[in-house]
Amino acid sequence: MVIVMKPQATEADVDYVIRRASSLGLKAHVSRQNGRTLIGLLGDTRGLDLGVLAGLRGVERVSAMTRPYRLASKEFKPEPTVVTVRDCVVGAERIVVMAGPCSVETPERLGEAARCVRAAGGVMLRGGAFKPRSSPYSFQGLAEKGLQLLAEAREATGLPIVTEVLSSEQVPLVSRYADVLQIGTRNMQNYALLHAVGESGMPVLLKRGMMSTIEELLFSAEYILSHGNPNVLLCERGIRTFETYTRNTLDINAVPALKELTHLPVIVDPSHATGKASLVRATSKAAVAAGADGLLIEVHPDPENAWSDGFQSLAPQEFSRLMAELRPVAEAVGRSL
Amino acid sequence: MVIVMKPQATEADVDYVIRRASSLGLKAHVSRQNGRTLIGLLGDTRGLDLGVLAGLRGVERVSAMTRPYRLASKEFKPEPTVVTVRDCVVGAERIVVMAGPCSVETPERLGEAARCVRAAGGVMLRGGAFKPRSSPYSFQGLAEKGLQLLAEAREATGLPIVTEVLSSEQVPLVSRYADVLQIGTRNMQNYALLHAVGESGMPVLLKRGMMSTIEELLFSAEYILSHGNPNVLLCERGIRTFETYTRNTLDINAVPALKELTHLPVIVDPSHATGKASLVRATSKAAVAAGADGLLIEVHPDPENAWSDGFQSLAPQEFSRLMAELRPVAEAVGRSL
Amino acid sequence: MVIVMKPQATEADVDYVIRRASSLGLKAHVSRQNGRTLIGLLGDTRGLDLGVLAGLRGVERVSAMTRPYRLASKEFKPEPTVVTVRDCVVGAERIVVMAGPCSVETPERLGEAARCVRAAGGVMLRGGAFKPRSSPYSFQGLAEKGLQLLAEAREATGLPIVTEVLSSEQVPLVSRYADVLQIGTRNMQNYALLHAVGESGMPVLLKRGMMSTIEELLFSAEYILSHGNPNVLLCERGIRTFETYTRNTLDINAVPALKELTHLPVIVDPSHATGKASLVRATSKAAVAAGADGLLIEVHPDPENAWSDGFQSLAPQEFSRLMAELRPVAEAVGRSL
Amino acid sequence: MVIVMKPQATEADVDYVIRRASSLGLKAHVSRQNGRTLIGLLGDTRGLDLGVLAGLRGVERVSAMTRPYRLASKEFKPEPTVVTVRDCVVGAERIVVMAGPCSVETPERLGEAARCVRAAGGVMLRGGAFKPRSSPYSFQGLAEKGLQLLAEAREATGLPIVTEVLSSEQVPLVSRYADVLQIGTRNMQNYALLHAVGESGMPVLLKRGMMSTIEELLFSAEYILSHGNPNVLLCERGIRTFETYTRNTLDINAVPALKELTHLPVIVDPSHATGKASLVRATSKAAVAAGADGLLIEVHPDPENAWSDGFQSLAPQEFSRLMAELRPVAEAVGRSL
Repeated sequence: MVIVMKPQATEADVDYVIRRASSLGLKAHVSRQNGRTLIGLLGDTRGLDLGVLAGLRGVERVSAMTRPYRLASKEFKPEPTVVTVRDCVVGAERIVVMAGPCSVETPERLGEAARCVRAAGGVMLRGGAFKPRSSPYSFQGLAEKGLQLLAEAREATGLPIVTEVLSSEQVPLVSRYADVLQIGTRNMQNYALLHAVGESGMPVLLKRGMMSTIEELLFSAEYILSHGNPNVLLCERGIRTFETYTRNTLDINAVPALKELTHLPVIVDPSHATGKASLVRATSKAAVAAGADGLLIEVHPDPENAWSDGFQSLAPQEFSRLMAELRPVAEAVGRSL
Repeated sequence: MVIVMKPQATEADVDYVIRRASSLGLKAHVSRQNGRTLIGLLGDTRGLDLGVLAGLRGVERVSAMTRPYRLASKEFKPEPTVVTVRDCVVGAERIVVMAGPCSVETPERLGEAARCVRAAGGVMLRGGAFKPRSSPYSFQGLAEKGLQLLAEAREATGLPIVTEVLSSEQVPLVSRYADVLQIGTRNMQNYALLHAVGESGMPVLLKRGMMSTIEELLFSAEYILSHGNPNVLLCERGIRTFETYTRNTLDINAVPALKELTHLPVIVDPSHATGKASLVRATSKAAVAAGADGLLIEVHPDPENAWSDGFQSLAPQEFSRLMAELRPVAEAVGRSL
Repeated sequence: MVIVMKPQATEADVDYVIRRASSLGLKAHVSRQNGRTLIGLLGDTRGLDLGVLAGLRGVERVSAMTRPYRLASKEFKPEPTVVTVRDCVVGAERIVVMAGPCSVETPERLGEAARCVRAAGGVMLRGGAFKPRSSPYSFQGLAEKGLQLLAEAREATGLPIVTEVLSSEQVPLVSRYADVLQIGTRNMQNYALLHAVGESGMPVLLKRGMMSTIEELLFSAEYILSHGNPNVLLCERGIRTFETYTRNTLDINAVPALKELTHLPVIVDPSHATGKASLVRATSKAAVAAGADGLLIEVHPDPENAWSDGFQSLAPQEFSRLMAELRPVAEAVGRSL
Repeated sequence: MVIVMKPQATEADVDYVIRRASSLGLKAHVSRQNGRTLIGLLGDTRGLDLGVLAGLRGVERVSAMTRPYRLASKEFKPEPTVVTVRDCVVGAERIVVMAGPCSVETPERLGEAARCVRAAGGVMLRGGAFKPRSSPYSFQGLAEKGLQLLAEAREATGLPIVTEVLSSEQVPLVSRYADVLQIGTRNMQNYALLHAVGESGMPVLLKRGMMSTIEELLFSAEYILSHGNPNVLLCERGIRTFETYTRNTLDINAVPALKELTHLPVIVDPSHATGKASLVRATSKAAVAAGADGLLIEVHPDPENAWSDGFQSLAPQEFSRLMAELRPVAEAVGRSL
C-alpha cells in the first residue's frame, strides 16, 4: 500500500502518518520523488480500514499495490529512474555502453582495453577483480590489486568503474574503488549481499540469476531499494535453457517486460547471454532496438590469450565496429549512443 | 561429404560420380546452384579414400562436412538462399512482414485484417484454417472453408497466403490454396509431414519446435531439402523455458546463430514468442536489428473478440504503428521494409 | 460436463439425453464402464440449466468437470483403467516390464533379446521398426521387414509386441503386426496420428513429449480417448532440462501426479529418461517405488554394437539383475513383478 | 592430480612432496583417509614430468584426475564418506530421515513437530530460523530466537538440529546452536559462505541450486572440502523446469549419478522437489529405492496454518504413515530406516 502525500504536506504530517501506520502494525518506507513524498506501507494490510489513513492531514490518496514488489514497480513510481554515475547518466536518452575485460589481468592489458573502450565511445569500464568461479581451482581474480588497477585505469581514461562484489564483507573494500557495484548472476538471491549494497547507497548493477524469473529479479531489486538505495540498474544476462549452441539464452522479451513493470534502467549483457563473440554484434543491436538503456560488453585486447572467457570477448577492432553499427540503431529508436 | 563439380562438367560426368559413390555404399543428392552441380554424399564415409572420387572427370573438389546436416549448411552453400513466393522475395534486402489473424474466422474479419495488413505494408497474409490445439475441445479451425476464405482474401488484396498444414494427407489440399505451407511448432519433427512438404516443392515456413535446439531445426530443414525442395524458411517462434511472465522465450540468439550456420532465410514470430501484444513491438524491432529476414505477426481487427490467441494479436492501428517504427530500424541495419 | 446414467437406463434413454444435449449445442461422447453409461458433453456449458438434463429419464446425476480434459480425468472415472494386451494386463497389481532393443536389427539379435526378456520375467517385447531420427541420414529402421521380425519373435516367445507408429498412414500396417502402438515423444502432439490411433481401438503407449507438461500429456490422451479408444497407457520418458550429465531428466514427480489426475496406467521409460545404462537400475526401482504400473527398458544382446542408442541399453545379464532387484521393491509397495 | 602416500610415509616425506610440487607451480591440498595421506595437486599439470614426483620417498602412486573436481570425486576417494552428527551416522546402511517445519514458529509447535518426528523414527530435526525469501516483505524467520527454540527442542527430544545459515557472518552464531549447517539452494554458489562453512569444520548439508547442474553441485562441495571440511552431505531438492504442476522437478537421476561420481552421502528433499504434500510419499519411496542415504521432509503439526510452505508440509499422521511405508522399501534395497 502506498500513501501519496500532497505537495504541501509538512514533515510533521509525514511523521504523523508513519506513527499511525506503525500503530496498525505497518512499517513505512519514505521516498521523495518530484517534490512529492510517498510512503510505502509494508505488512499485512488486509482488513485494514484505509479510511483511517486517507483522512489524515497532508494525505492526497492511498493506493493498494497489486504486485508483490512495491518500490520497484511502475505503480509506485511511474516515471523512469535515472542513475548518475560520476558524469554518466543511465536511464536517460543516451544508451550507455560499459565495456572491458572479464577479469583484470595486467596493468598493460587493462590500460589497453580501457583506451579502446573510450576511443570507441564506451562510457564505463567493466572488469572483475573478484571472480566467482564454479571451480575452486579456477583463477579467482587479482582481488584488491585488481581494484587498484581499475582505479588507475579510471585515472588514465576518466571512465567510471563497474566491478563485481562477491560478499557483504567485501562491500566496503570494493566501494572504495568502484563506481558501480555489480551483483553477479549467482548472487542475485544472496540476501546478505543485497542488504549490504542496499545500505551502501552506491549504484548497483544487479544481474538476473541465470534461472530466475523476471519477477524474482524485481524482488531482488526490491531488497536493495527497501534498504534505502534507489540506484539500481537491472541487467539481463541470459538465462539457462535446454539450448546448447549458445552458453545462455538472451531473454530479449525481458527488456520490454521490465519496461512495463518497473521504472529502473535495464542493461543487457550480450557477451554472457550468448557466450560467443560472433553473436555479440547482432544481439547488441537487438537489445538496443528492444529498448535497453545500456549494454555490458566484454572487450579484451587479445581475446585468444585472455585468462577467462576469451571466446566471448570482442577484440578492439570488433568493438569499434559494433559501436559504429549501434549508432544508427540507437537513432532509429530515438536514442543516442 | 560434398563433391563440387567444375562449371563445365557434363551430365555424364555427374552420373559417373554418382555411380562410383554408389559402389562405395554412398547415396547421392544432386543440387545445382549458380551454374554448379553439387553432389552431397550420404552414408559412412569414414575410412574412404577420397582420392578415388577427387580424381574423377569433372570433379573440382571434395570437401568433408563437419556438421551432421549438409544441404542446410553454409559449408554446402555459402550464399544466402532466396525464396520467391509469387512476387515476394524472401531472404533478400527487403524484410518481409507476414501478418494476419491466428485463425480464419469470418469473411468480413479476414477481409478487414487483410486490408489492414496491405495498407500498413505487409506483403503476405497469414491465417490458420487448420488449428493444432492441445485440447480436443478447442476450436479446430474452419478447414477447407477457411482455405477458401484465404484465397478470396488473396484475390481481393494480392497478398500471398501462408497457412498451416497439419498432416501429410492435407498437403495436396492445402497446396491448392496456399502459397506457403507452414509447419507448426508441434510438427517440427513429424517426419512424414516433412517428407510430404519436401516432395511438394512448395515454399515451406518451418517453425522451430518449442522444445527443439537450433541444430534440430536444421535437421528438420534437412529432411525437406533432401527431398528436393530448396524453398525453406526457418522460423524462430520462442522456446519453452522456466519463465512464466511470457508465453515463450524469444531466442534472439538463434537469429545470428542460424545466420552463421545456414544459408536459409530466418523469420521471427514475436507474437507467439512473447504471447503478449504489449511486447510485440519491441521484440519485432529486436528481431530486425538482429538480422531476421522477415516477421510473422498476428493482427486481428478486434483482438478482444478473437476466437483464439486474441491476447497476443495486434489491433490494426497497433500494427500500423509497428510498421512505421520498424522502417528506421530496418534502414539502420541496411535493409528496407 | 458428465452425465452418469442409472444402471437400468436403456439405450433409448441414452439416445434421448444425447438428442437433448445436441439441441443445447453440446456434443456427446458415450462410454460404458462397469455397467454404467457415461455421457461426456463437450461445448460451452456456461449458463445452461442443468436441471433440464438432470431430470431426464435414466439420468442418475450430472456433474461439472473442473479440468480442461474430461475422459482422462479421475473425476470422470475414479477407478483405475486396466488395459489388456493379449494375456497381459496393464494397470493391475502386477508391474509390467516391456523390454527389448531400441531398433530391430537382425533376426538373430532380436531373437536373442526376446529370449532374454522372457527369461528374466519381462512380459512384452519392445523394438522399433520405424525410427524417428533427428537427422535424415541416420538409420531409419527396417520398416515392414522389422515388423515381420517382431511378429516372428512373438511367435517364438509368446511376448506381445510394442512398436512405434510414426504417421497416421502407417497405422493400418503397424496394427497388422503390433499389439501395442507406441506414439513417440516427438509425436505427442501430432493430432492426425492421435486421431488415427484413437480410431484404431488398439492399445496405445503414449509417450510424453520431452518438453510437454503433465497436463499436455493428458490433453493428448484425451484426443485418443475422445475418438473412442479407452486403451491408453501413459509413458513418462524424461523431459528436457538444462542438465547435461543425463540425456533427459526423469520427472519422477509425474508418476504420483498422474496417479492423482487420471485413471490411466502409467509406464516409465528409464532408458530414455537417463540415456545411460549405468543409471537404469536405480531409476527403475525408483519408478516402481513411486507407483508406476510398468517399465519400458532397452535391452540389447550386445549394447556396444547396437545400431542405435547402445549406450543406454542393458546387456542381458544386467537386465536379469535389474529384474531380480525390482522384485523386492515391487513387493515393498504391494505389487508383484 | 593426486599423490597417494604409502601407509608408512612420514610427515617429512609429505612435506618434501609438497615442497617439490610447489617448486613446480602446484598447490597442495593434504587430506588423510583410512590411515593414508593423499595430496591433491592443483594447478596446470600438463607437460609435467610425473616421474619426478612418483620417485620421491613415501609416494605410493601418482594418479591423474580426469574431472575438474578432485576431493569430491570417487577417483580421489573410492569408499563412501560417512558423516557423524552426534550419534547419527549419515552415509551408512541406515537411511536417515531429517524432518521438521519449514520455519520455526512457536515453542509449542516446534515441540510438537519434534516429538512427532522422533516418535515416527526420524533422527534429526530440521527447521529454519533464518529464512531466505524472494520478497523482502515475507516472513524472514525468528533469527537467534529460533535457534534457541531449536536447541530447546533438541534438549527435549535428543534430535540433532539441521538449520540454514544465510551468510558467512552468521556461521559462528548458527554453529553455536546447530549440529548441521544447511546451505540453501540460492546460496549454492555463494563462495564466501562455502568458504566459511568449509573452515567451520561443521557437518554441512549442501542443497543443489535449483538452476545448477550435478557437476556444479560437486564443484560447490569441492569448495567446502578444499577448505578442510570433509563433512559434506549433498542434497537434491528439485530443479527448475518448464513443468508447472509441481513447484520443482525432482531430478531422481541425480541420485545414482552422484553415487557414480562422488563418495559423499546423498540426501533428497521431496518436500521442496514437489511442492505438494500429496506427492511427498511416492517420491520419498522413489528416493530411497534410487539409493538416497537420507530424506529431508517438511512436517508441521498444523500445515494449514503454517507461516510458510504449509501446502508442502506433512501432518504428523501423514509423516507416520510415510515412515511406515518407507521401511519395506529401504529393506528391499538392503538398507534400514
